[in-house]
Amino acid sequence: MGGSTTGRRGPYAGTAARRRTILESAFEVFSEAGYRGGSMRDIAQRIGIAHTTLLHHFSSKSDLLAGVLELRDEHDQPGLAEAGGAGILRQLVEVVRRNQRTPGLTELYCILSAEATAPGHPAHEWFRERYVRTVGHTRAALEQMAQRGELREGVDPAREAQRIVALMDGLQVQWLLDRDSIDMAAQMREYLRRVSVPEI
Amino acid sequence: MGGSTTGRRGPYAGTAARRRTILESAFEVFSEAGYRGGSMRDIAQRIGIAHTTLLHHFSSKSDLLAGVLELRDEHDQPGLAEAGGAGILRQLVEVVRRNQRTPGLTELYCILSAEATAPGHPAHEWFRERYVRTVGHTRAALEQMAQRGELREGVDPAREAQRIVALMDGLQVQWLLDRDSIDMAAQMREYLRRVSVPEI
Repeated sequence: MGGSTTGRRGPYAGTAARRRTILESAFEVFSEAGYRGGSMRDIAQRIGIAHTTLLHHFSSKSDLLAGVLELRDEHDQPGLAEAGGAGILRQLVEVVRRNQRTPGLTELYCILSAEATAPGHPAHEWFRERYVRTVGHTRAALEQMAQRGELREGVDPAREAQRIVALMDGLQVQWLLDRDSIDMAAQMREYLRRVSVPEI
Repeated sequence: MGGSTTGRRGPYAGTAARRRTILESAFEVFSEAGYRGGSMRDIAQRIGIAHTTLLHHFSSKSDLLAGVLELRDEHDQPGLAEAGGAGILRQLVEVVRRNQRTPGLTELYCILSAEATAPGHPAHEWFRERYVRTVGHTRAALEQMAQRGELREGVDPAREAQRIVALMDGLQVQWLLDRDSIDMAAQMREYLRRVSVPEI
């Protein structure tokens, strides 16, 4: 992927493409083995680059992590942007379903977001902004639904958006502790039906 | 506290009382400074014991932590046991209010419960059992409400209990990242009103 574009678009395009290939490898390794279990050597090996080459692009595991979480959000964004109104809530259920298929990455996200609540944590600001964005998008979707008459009576878009995001996060803790105890996607769907007039 | 009982009830009672005094000190220190910020020396100093005495009772910070979280649950239990039906939901709002007053401990719980989702983590089993217990108590409360006709139509006690616990956990992440962004107790209360017929 990186090699084929290097010549044509110059070193920057090559670097960007290489970074993306590395992040996709890290995404896979962390998804399978978790953050602690996945090593930088595994990530390099999977795409056949030297460990030192990897270090040139990402100097630490936590750098890689921030990149991976951004890539994960990017994967989710297109679907969310296309879907309007209640379609966005349906997409959220799909995001939860995807999280169930990538337990390592879900665990990673759960642990990192919790650790980053500590004010001095290097990812604190990144997560703070991420939540402003995520809650904001969800709120915008609910407001759009309200305009279309798709929101159930008494649902406040601002506070409901915080609760929907909170529910996604909280269900993960229970699911990660005991995967047989809970079907996260079914739980989300059942909950969102209480918010939405159209079928979710 | 420890000293006064040692003579009368023998060394074990003294040890139990001493452990409790230490845990109460750790509770305060972790609540104020968080798990990382609070040191074992601070905990010993606050109750005027030597660092080595502390180490005799709790050999590591994580031992202390498990003890503190059990103490926190003990603080919550009496109120929850006394309150019946919808009273238990009201008590949950009080627990959230208490969490808002002890941000250091809430942060501690949030981080530790997330880290413990990793199967190899030393507190994994403890947290798994804690969630079985917490969700179970909440479910029992909702079932009691259902028998009294206090539960809104269509609310399934088992799945609702998982969601209520998830919501408490998830709201903490947003609150810890930005305390002005969210009023956790008000959010819980508004949510529980959708579940309960009596006023929460």
